Amino acid sequence: MNSFRVDSEDPASSARRGTLETRHASIETPCFLPVGTRGAVKGVEFDRLEEWDCRAVLANTYHLMLRPGIDLIRRAGGLHAFMGWRRAILTDSGGFQVMSLASRRRITEEGVEFRAPEDGSRHFLTPELAMELQSDFAVDIAMALDVCPPFPAEREEIAQAAAISLRWAERSRRAFAGPGLLFGILQGGTHEDLRREAAAPLLDLGFDGYAIGGVAVGEPKDAIRRITAFSAGLLPKERPRYLMGVGTPADLLESVRAGVDLFDCVLPTRHGRMGHAYTGHGEVTIKHERFRSDLSPLDPDCACPVCRRHSRAYLRNLFVLKDFSAPMLLSLHNVFFYLSWMRRIRDAIAGGALASLEVPPEEKVALGA
Amino acid sequence: MNSFRVDSEDPASSARRGTLETRHASIETPCFLPVGTRGAVKGVEFDRLEEWDCRAVLANTYHLMLRPGIDLIRRAGGLHAFMGWRRAILTDSGGFQVMSLASRRRITEEGVEFRAPEDGSRHFLTPELAMELQSDFAVDIAMALDVCPPFPAEREEIAQAAAISLRWAERSRRAFAGPGLLFGILQGGTHEDLRREAAAPLLDLGFDGYAIGGVAVGEPKDAIRRITAFSAGLLPKERPRYLMGVGTPADLLESVRAGVDLFDCVLPTRHGRMGHAYTGHGEVTIKHERFRSDLSPLDPDCACPVCRRHSRAYLRNLFVLKDFSAPMLLSLHNVFFYLSWMRRIRDAIAGGALASLEVPPEEKVALGA
Repeated sequence: MNSFRVDSEDPASSARRGTLETRHASIETPCFLPVGTRGAVKGVEFDRLEEWDCRAVLANTYHLMLRPGIDLIRRAGGLHAFMGWRRAILTDSGGFQVMSLASRRRITEEGVEFRAPEDGSRHFLTPELAMELQSDFAVDIAMALDVCPPFPAEREEIAQAAAISLRWAERSRRAFAGPGLLFGILQGGTHEDLRREAAAPLLDLGFDGYAIGGVAVGEPKDAIRRITAFSAGLLPKERPRYLMGVGTPADLLESVRAGVDLFDCVLPTRHGRMGHAYTGHGEVTIKHERFRSDLSPLDPDCACPVCRRHSRAYLRNLFVLKDFSAPMLLSLHNVFFYLSWMRRIRDAIAGGALASLEVPPEEKVALGA
Repeated sequence: MNSFRVDSEDPASSARRGTLETRHASIETPCFLPVGTRGAVKGVEFDRLEEWDCRAVLANTYHLMLRPGIDLIRRAGGLHAFMGWRRAILTDSGGFQVMSLASRRRITEEGVEFRAPEDGSRHFLTPELAMELQSDFAVDIAMALDVCPPFPAEREEIAQAAAISLRWAERSRRAFAGPGLLFGILQGGTHEDLRREAAAPLLDLGFDGYAIGGVAVGEPKDAIRRITAFSAGLLPKERPRYLMGVGTPADLLESVRAGVDLFDCVLPTRHGRMGHAYTGHGEVTIKHERFRSDLSPLDPDCACPVCRRHSRAYLRNLFVLKDFSAPMLLSLHNVFFYLSWMRRIRDAIAGGALASLEVPPEEKVALGA
């Protein structure tokens, strides 16, 4: 049974407006999932996310398996109950975080052995364990375990990673017992031929959706966009396509045009904590001297609770003085901005107006803009 | 004209249920004002405070005069517009913060000269300047400039501080041009005779309300409670009494019984950021090992958004891992708890049931409690 339905298509691009039915939410796509690494979206209350009609968040299997550990999450009755989040949850498989441990991990055909930097504890993550964890989490969308090589890497290393990811995808598919959906992940770096070779056998495994992995791991922006578009074209139109870990508001629009349906990214929260706000006029780096006396909101067109009340000058003063509220308020604005931006994209597709939606500038906003 | 009205009195104590009319809000007393030092209540959105029916917050003249400075606040049209807060604001006079600069300040009859530790800039704060600043802020309640000696201090030093505070109170009263209410501050340390001597001439100046200053600056708890009760008894029944910088939930109830109407304190937000939660069963220090697997909420009787969704185990995990959401969620709970606690106190007075209201324990909460 297909849980994904395409409701309308953009005539001028590969963009589509769809609906992904999950156990806890009906996810309207294209959709951005705020990142809740340890079960909390940093600086943003779940009440706010619900109020803003956020249907799904991402949580990280790697972090949750280390702390608080699967036993407590089982005892709580699953990840929804443990987190206190009632809508959809997508978990990554833990693969990406483990790979980034570099010298602290060793990949074999069986799985990946690693030592957690947090406490030195040893773990062995296999496709079967990644499935068991996510089944016990009882998440709405689970991800197959994959191997994501860093950038740059030798072609041979990327080819091997794609090959082992494929074998692990098969084991993941076989081991997964639900209750949610399971997505496979396409690897192959920036090499179109490797991506193409990996796609057919991956699709044969019959996942509920497909992720484009190994993107935005350090490549230049034009390579990210090229390989995203190429990869999306390899994936079946009738299944949701998920671009992992991307990106800026402009990246999201470009990727939607390439046919991507789901996104997650730490940018709105991480950049918010660092003092960067996304706006329709570009990025506002709030500490900048130019905002010292600027009594206009972060984005005059934004309806978020921060823009409705506070000025750039107010936020700048709090940020410069390291007031605890400052990173919170910027994170709030950014997450709202991302969710609103995706709603605008969805409405534009449904209304046949995506072609006229302007890409928000990525440069810094000018004074008084 | 008296802006304060006593609506009902507790037969068994000096507690009263009242209403203080200000330009931006009708403040139901006894009332707790969350502290917004730099114009933000750390970790708590203003939307939440409004939703929780918080009528007034405190902001610090000292911090605001240094940054962003009075010019910008004037340009914004006052402190309400600058902060984005629509209800009542009370500002302290700046005196308390300046006094705590110790070696960096020098008190003369004219005023207090100080160097700001933040940037080394030199300032001269007089009663007239403190009034001008608060008038330009256009706050609902302004405070006279006073001298608050530290604890312990020689009796002679406290007597001199009380005497100069009285002369500055007179100058404050004369200089203040509104638009809000102006409160005088009673000093005299833990010496009842000094407090009594200072009270009569202070009351003669005819303030809109009176604060008990110089309390909770380091004295033992029993001294705080004794001198609070004694001082409250010196102040007129028909004016609001404000105990500055106090205290725990138990302190608030005890002080209400002594006749105090208004409070402010950094405890709920500061302790929240440090991982301490106030509950009806005592204080929860969330990092404690005993909460590792505790799936109950911070306070099972609390209706705050944190207790409605999250467990102690969830919050502990976030706190131990220094997740940005953890101090925010504990601050939210604490401020909600304080506001609810004051509502319970008000309802108890109005319902003639204050005597049966139990003082919440101040010790740490036991496992599973």
